[in-house]
Amino acid sequence: MSDAVPDMRELGSKVSNWGRWGADDQRGATNLITPERVRAAAGLVRRGDIFDLGIPLDSDGPQPGGARINPIRLMSENGQEQVLPGGYRWADDYVFMPLQAASQYDGLAHVHYDDRLYNGHPGDSVTVKGAAFNGIEHQARGIAGRAVLLDIARLKGVDWLPAGTAITPDDLDAACEAHGVTVGPGDILLFRTGYRRRFLTERDPASFMAGEPGLGLATAQWLRDRDVAVVGSDNWGIEVLPGEREGALFELHMVLIRDMGLTLAELLDLEELAEDCAADGVHEFFYAGPPLKFTRGIGTPINPLAIK
Amino acid sequence: MSDAVPDMRELGSKVSNWGRWGADDQRGATNLITPERVRAAAGLVRRGDIFDLGIPLDSDGPQPGGARINPIRLMSENGQEQVLPGGYRWADDYVFMPLQAASQYDGLAHVHYDDRLYNGHPGDSVTVKGAAFNGIEHQARGIAGRAVLLDIARLKGVDWLPAGTAITPDDLDAACEAHGVTVGPGDILLFRTGYRRRFLTERDPASFMAGEPGLGLATAQWLRDRDVAVVGSDNWGIEVLPGEREGALFELHMVLIRDMGLTLAELLDLEELAEDCAADGVHEFFYAGPPLKFTRGIGTPINPLAIK
Amino acid sequence: MSDAVPDMRELGSKVSNWGRWGADDQRGATNLITPERVRAAAGLVRRGDIFDLGIPLDSDGPQPGGARINPIRLMSENGQEQVLPGGYRWADDYVFMPLQAASQYDGLAHVHYDDRLYNGHPGDSVTVKGAAFNGIEHQARGIAGRAVLLDIARLKGVDWLPAGTAITPDDLDAACEAHGVTVGPGDILLFRTGYRRRFLTERDPASFMAGEPGLGLATAQWLRDRDVAVVGSDNWGIEVLPGEREGALFELHMVLIRDMGLTLAELLDLEELAEDCAADGVHEFFYAGPPLKFTRGIGTPINPLAIK
Amino acid sequence: MSDAVPDMRELGSKVSNWGRWGADDQRGATNLITPERVRAAAGLVRRGDIFDLGIPLDSDGPQPGGARINPIRLMSENGQEQVLPGGYRWADDYVFMPLQAASQYDGLAHVHYDDRLYNGHPGDSVTVKGAAFNGIEHQARGIAGRAVLLDIARLKGVDWLPAGTAITPDDLDAACEAHGVTVGPGDILLFRTGYRRRFLTERDPASFMAGEPGLGLATAQWLRDRDVAVVGSDNWGIEVLPGEREGALFELHMVLIRDMGLTLAELLDLEELAEDCAADGVHEFFYAGPPLKFTRGIGTPINPLAIK
Repeated sequence: MSDAVPDMRELGSKVSNWGRWGADDQRGATNLITPERVRAAAGLVRRGDIFDLGIPLDSDGPQPGGARINPIRLMSENGQEQVLPGGYRWADDYVFMPLQAASQYDGLAHVHYDDRLYNGHPGDSVTVKGAAFNGIEHQARGIAGRAVLLDIARLKGVDWLPAGTAITPDDLDAACEAHGVTVGPGDILLFRTGYRRRFLTERDPASFMAGEPGLGLATAQWLRDRDVAVVGSDNWGIEVLPGEREGALFELHMVLIRDMGLTLAELLDLEELAEDCAADGVHEFFYAGPPLKFTRGIGTPINPLAIK
Repeated sequence: MSDAVPDMRELGSKVSNWGRWGADDQRGATNLITPERVRAAAGLVRRGDIFDLGIPLDSDGPQPGGARINPIRLMSENGQEQVLPGGYRWADDYVFMPLQAASQYDGLAHVHYDDRLYNGHPGDSVTVKGAAFNGIEHQARGIAGRAVLLDIARLKGVDWLPAGTAITPDDLDAACEAHGVTVGPGDILLFRTGYRRRFLTERDPASFMAGEPGLGLATAQWLRDRDVAVVGSDNWGIEVLPGEREGALFELHMVLIRDMGLTLAELLDLEELAEDCAADGVHEFFYAGPPLKFTRGIGTPINPLAIK
Repeated sequence: MSDAVPDMRELGSKVSNWGRWGADDQRGATNLITPERVRAAAGLVRRGDIFDLGIPLDSDGPQPGGARINPIRLMSENGQEQVLPGGYRWADDYVFMPLQAASQYDGLAHVHYDDRLYNGHPGDSVTVKGAAFNGIEHQARGIAGRAVLLDIARLKGVDWLPAGTAITPDDLDAACEAHGVTVGPGDILLFRTGYRRRFLTERDPASFMAGEPGLGLATAQWLRDRDVAVVGSDNWGIEVLPGEREGALFELHMVLIRDMGLTLAELLDLEELAEDCAADGVHEFFYAGPPLKFTRGIGTPINPLAIK
Repeated sequence: MSDAVPDMRELGSKVSNWGRWGADDQRGATNLITPERVRAAAGLVRRGDIFDLGIPLDSDGPQPGGARINPIRLMSENGQEQVLPGGYRWADDYVFMPLQAASQYDGLAHVHYDDRLYNGHPGDSVTVKGAAFNGIEHQARGIAGRAVLLDIARLKGVDWLPAGTAITPDDLDAACEAHGVTVGPGDILLFRTGYRRRFLTERDPASFMAGEPGLGLATAQWLRDRDVAVVGSDNWGIEVLPGEREGALFELHMVLIRDMGLTLAELLDLEELAEDCAADGVHEFFYAGPPLKFTRGIGTPINPLAIK
């Protein structure tokens, strides 16, 4: 129902967090991750089991080429020609990669419209040198706290949702209900579409990237009502693609990042974690997903840990 | 007293962990980080304050060039030439960097001698394609648990220890005593030399890299006796340089990585954390420092979180 | 007729140039480009018209990803944030690319068999540091001299030869006859398959790279009989693919590079030059195609000039 | 005599080539290299001896780090883990480098002032994607023709001129006279300062880059009067540094590139060529220095050939 899709700029204005943490703020919704909430979240570590949510960084990744490639790691030393005292040998490697090639945060300078970034910082401050405002380094102190997994694919009884499936506020509510979990202020919300499983099954970057299931525009209000701090998923762009409005692209990106100041965690592997949550019925846990501190960076590769 | 310095191969043999976690093990001492220990460590989160221990990834880093350079992050898109529906703009960046350029883990394939890596895996398995054994991806599930900070520089009343200062087992014991803390199985041991402060004061990569204060060879036994899982520091190579034996280089690297299977965390920034520990007298905390999952990688950049 | 295809090792042995220019030689057949021949070749410049044979280095190149990618050129400066005396601004760029991504020379360390490179240099001398022998830097002094274009596609009346078409010695003789040209010692032989036109027409890297028309194995003897110094083409691998023998791959590469010491020039754009040669009937010209001097390099990007 | 130094903008206006080759021109002074001149230049090949003027591309280059680094070439394959039919092995390499790291052309988008590039193209057309106008690909067809070497260091009887030495029009005239050579329209002018010898002697990138001998501002008129097409040298920036006017930087760059549309060839190795010219007294020769065709590129690495 395209006519039910909210207007992007109206929606953005309604859910906006601009000014909420001061005119100079460059962190956005991760401000919601307060020490009290971190302390409380630590109490979610009940067994001490760690699940790593990052996907491998190698040439078998999901990037089909074009704007982004898979990481290219090359050795600079393997010891072969070294003649060192004691017969010691050492190895070293380099990488060339897009910071958004695999599991990643989209920082708050990643997208914008109407010449303004999150919190009103000027759009042309993103230059050839990177983000003068809202760079990923401003998230360095985090991101750790309470996280909730909503397993939408399992709820719908499918291995993965097909591309173009818009997840609605009702879907999120139904998942909370089914999992017996609530989502609240400062939470890191992870939702599973099964799309990582699709990639692991098909190993076809081009079709994987051609579209995706994901959040519909209306969920922005749902996330804002609950004051979520970070949204993450196993798809590659959080939102449904093709979008809900004909010809529109990445409208939810604009609203979440530019208006709400949400950091997005994309291309996660939630498979093992989801199995575990289904098995023990516990869908909340401690999450520790530090970004790398790329000064003025647009994004960062990550390997977040979920600890139950 | 060079005659008191243990023989490297003898020492390596004494503290060896080869076979301890099976003939096929590729993780080494991080096996000591058990779920029980992770669960207990979560109890160390008392205030919910997060300290990020990674240094910035940019051109002002500590690499003077040569074998390693500072990260070079370049923009592939900043929106300037984009003509998209809705006036949307997006930005993206790439990085070229040594995986050991800044705050980093040295993986278990980083150094070896006598043609054997940690746990006996063949030295020539480190090829142009990377580490067929002991790659950094085998640490993906971690590294999180209890960490202890021993502030050696503060204990000695200096801003930073001079290069060439060997930290001894007695120093470590004295620090434990002064801080009222013990080091035990599965712990992540962080020791502070003040060398990050030196770099921030002098901003001179060449002299920073010309030598360093760090662990003396004799500490290997101390670490083994306590079954430490990971050792980290604010210096760039953990061990004292120049080394304790004339002409010998990186002997402790060999023993810690190749014999004990210890993952090392180098080039951390412990300044703010150390201030806080000095202020509240609490030198233990929860640590979450996930590696990136570089398949067959030798090392990985990190930004570990210390949570008190 | 697969039974007519010469045995690769027998052929390699027959056409071998090992030892011909000394046991230490690392240049191979470019030794045939003597000053006398260069001087004579300069006489082929009759009009002063220059044709550049390199293809563009950008993201629209022929590499489909995998072992090689198209060049990624990124700006480090464009002047936007600069505040310099006089309002001056400057721009700079970086590239990350395989040295064999586009128009290129395959150097003499590119392929080998039976543990020996060209001229008997040991195969394991190609390490993580590059080619200790036969590196591309040994071709630095060249490559310039007389070149001949044999336009096989035009001769056969097609836009391009289909993949899998083996060019035979008879084809080369027929082209020489049709063009009224001979091929002799020290010549750079360029043959046109039309495959560049195919790429420009279809713009499909995957199918372009899936096979190609090219030299059959039997042409090795033809090239050796004439003492050709360099062979170049508009295809991406000089030889026919799939190969003439079931399951065999790159046999001609082995013979030309490893046995004969031939430097290969691949992925050239011969379209405009071929038009000109067809128009004026002159298929010989001066060629200047210097390699970049990558120390220990396996290959090099090139943009050779044909001057008529 | 700073008061004798011409005003940069006045000078730029006087020697300007804007509009000379049409309002759309993006090639500048290389338009002067006409077929007739190329044909005549071929006649300068008298012996057939080739001198390669590029410096090696490796980690021992002149870049001290900072804005530019030395090329980093890394192997992606060396054959070690390959299992191919026939025991064949292949090797491949990648490079990451600034396009202006070593011997290079500065293209016509490299510098500008007053918001205009050469020929009036807008300054902000140099974006994160590169040069929309005046990109290095517009020089693809060249650069080949008559070149002249003026050996200023030899003329002055020094191994190398000290940094800060401004070469004057009189110096250039004296060199022409001493060498018995004239400089005319379409010529590639190479002048030798001995600075390559300095680098090879001292191997100190930092002091090499701290300043240089080079052309003074007044030579712009000299070059314009003779209609030189390209200027090259063994220094790293063509012009004298520190500059002739206190606090002014790269004024000649602005005039030569932005006003005159001159392509500059920097960081050449003229040592062997200069020896030969001194020995035979012939300072003119054929030059073939094709740029790589980096689409929208600011510069390009080169290895020009001088053929006598």
